[in-house]
Amino acid sequence: MDYGKESLKLHAEWKGKIEISTRVPAASDTDLSLAYTPGVAQPCLEIQKDVSKSYELTGRHNLCAVITDGSAVLGLGDIGPEAGMPVMEGKCVLFKAFGNVDAFPLCIKSKDVDEIVNTIYLISGSFGGVNLEDISSPRCFEIERKLKEKCDIPIFHDDQHGTAIVTLAGLTNALKIVGKSKEEVKVVTSGAGAAAISIVRLLLSAGFRDIIMCDSNGAIYSGRENLNWIKSEMAEVTNPERKSGTLKEMLVGADIFIGVSAPNVLKAEDIAKMNKDAIIFACANPTPEILPDEAKKGGARIVATGRSDYPNQVNNVLAFPGVFRGTFDVRASDINEEMKVAAAEALAGLISDEELSEDYIIPKAFDPRVGETVASAVAEAAKRSGVARV
Amino acid sequence: MDYGKESLKLHAEWKGKIEISTRVPAASDTDLSLAYTPGVAQPCLEIQKDVSKSYELTGRHNLCAVITDGSAVLGLGDIGPEAGMPVMEGKCVLFKAFGNVDAFPLCIKSKDVDEIVNTIYLISGSFGGVNLEDISSPRCFEIERKLKEKCDIPIFHDDQHGTAIVTLAGLTNALKIVGKSKEEVKVVTSGAGAAAISIVRLLLSAGFRDIIMCDSNGAIYSGRENLNWIKSEMAEVTNPERKSGTLKEMLVGADIFIGVSAPNVLKAEDIAKMNKDAIIFACANPTPEILPDEAKKGGARIVATGRSDYPNQVNNVLAFPGVFRGTFDVRASDINEEMKVAAAEALAGLISDEELSEDYIIPKAFDPRVGETVASAVAEAAKRSGVARV
Repeated sequence: MDYGKESLKLHAEWKGKIEISTRVPAASDTDLSLAYTPGVAQPCLEIQKDVSKSYELTGRHNLCAVITDGSAVLGLGDIGPEAGMPVMEGKCVLFKAFGNVDAFPLCIKSKDVDEIVNTIYLISGSFGGVNLEDISSPRCFEIERKLKEKCDIPIFHDDQHGTAIVTLAGLTNALKIVGKSKEEVKVVTSGAGAAAISIVRLLLSAGFRDIIMCDSNGAIYSGRENLNWIKSEMAEVTNPERKSGTLKEMLVGADIFIGVSAPNVLKAEDIAKMNKDAIIFACANPTPEILPDEAKKGGARIVATGRSDYPNQVNNVLAFPGVFRGTFDVRASDINEEMKVAAAEALAGLISDEELSEDYIIPKAFDPRVGETVASAVAEAAKRSGVARV
Repeated sequence: MDYGKESLKLHAEWKGKIEISTRVPAASDTDLSLAYTPGVAQPCLEIQKDVSKSYELTGRHNLCAVITDGSAVLGLGDIGPEAGMPVMEGKCVLFKAFGNVDAFPLCIKSKDVDEIVNTIYLISGSFGGVNLEDISSPRCFEIERKLKEKCDIPIFHDDQHGTAIVTLAGLTNALKIVGKSKEEVKVVTSGAGAAAISIVRLLLSAGFRDIIMCDSNGAIYSGRENLNWIKSEMAEVTNPERKSGTLKEMLVGADIFIGVSAPNVLKAEDIAKMNKDAIIFACANPTPEILPDEAKKGGARIVATGRSDYPNQVNNVLAFPGVFRGTFDVRASDINEEMKVAAAEALAGLISDEELSEDYIIPKAFDPRVGETVASAVAEAAKRSGVARV
């Protein structure tokens, strides 16, 4: 199927993938007097007395804003705020279908970090949480950090953290199969954008130690030229030996390759230089850094991609709906590293040792256990880490 | 029934009066490939090429933001943004139930005019229109004016224009009954806030000539002290004889009283000083400026209030759902005076000469003809006045 052509046709028929539904009757004067004036004055006054009541008397407790500035939409780049909206609507569909979270799409007509932060802050009283989406790096890091400081609701940038959670889950299971430990494996990434940086940060949180990030200029190391602020920051916590060189050079003797960069950057011969039982996460979409067959030819034992037509799909839908479900269930004020690690462990744990295989290290997107399992692990971690508010 | 108590109980059960529903399937990999990646890239690219396609490929064409800063909620005053949300949600219920318009509630954590304007402008690409709600006067006028200048989507402040449309409709029918013409009647208002000013402006647009506005200091006239900028503006277009004095003094010899101010400001004896066949719109809520029985005792022929338990309810729900329905149906870029007058005429016209009576000058809120009739008149007026875009 030509997904693009068919999707365009369907979007023109749908004219919107979500809609607003009413949950209360509005068929009589009495109905209106209760859902609207004069009765509605009472819940308003309760919230005025105690703003936290807005979580009990309005839909806020289950409402997530899905917000973009249109600057890094899919692989399409900076296509503008309105053009990002079909993706945002699609995300809202997934939030509801996989997490029973009410999600509402918004695009912001600005590329200025502070203006974006202020806009989101000013409307944050309407929501229970914010999911940032498709915002270019390194602006996305600054926007997320400033929002976390300013807002009292959880902020989550799915392109970063969703991908990171599913990647960590997959790696956890892959390491079980090859019998290596996270503390000793050598990890090399291709890509140093939002997803790559967040993956590396989460791997470090989870106990991985030896990670080298590569961008299009090769290995990132402390002191290298042409590093933006976020890459400089990452150089301080990765590549302890300050190795320099190309991606392919870094791969020699590595155990794990994580690609969130560009299609076809690797060949079988590059994989062949990695350690035995190499683990390849080639997540560039739709064309991975190396196709699974090619990677296997080079000796890879386990290959994951972003695609649904190969085994081991790294699909964010495994993470964000459950993450927000669990976050909302305990009204968490933040989505912290502990909650993300818990989400990854829960995802990994869905595959029993008996089921675990080279072609099944990540649960399927439509595994009905996923949402609830992730949600409950995230809610527990929120409680443990002190950010749960109910 | 104690509406306040019962409403509070229900709000705690509802936990949100609206929700987000999905309109597309999300049950298979193929579903996701069409509603989301990779297929969704195609509609995104179409919108990038031509932003107006966002009205055809996303839900924007039917989506209205309902926005408050919480500064003038119901009769409760400045209760804060979050506390206004039960009203905003209720409004969204009415939009859907009476106009099949998808409406989404937002509150803004700011009282600064320019900050509010900028926030709404920056998210305006997500919506087909904006309904401002419960924003204090005179800020609401400035916010509306600046937004109209800045945004390419229609902006409507319902507290102003909704009330004005229904009032004009009721007055049109009332004048038929008493056999007076709008060009010759003397109108006196009590109140000079958002609703009063918008009513007066719309009456002037519709051909009324002799109007005196009164605030708590009495008649407003050109040159009076203690007038804010909007009252000064109104002083220039009303009260041509520059009369000064109290509300009660102004009522002597008047034909129409319009109250959008405070409870119980008038007595039967005040009405008795008005002209024969006095028309009284006493719309303070929940307690009107004068109760219908008392007004009749003073000789009023026709009385309207804001209440559903008396005849002739001035209820905004008669206007805003149809106004936005019609506006959206022709993708109008503005909701102008011509469209508002058309809405009022359409509303008035729903009552035939045979049905028309002192106790039936305004259609009932649940009259099933209202939404469509208003919508089609508004859409026609948008075309006539050149603001329709399809």
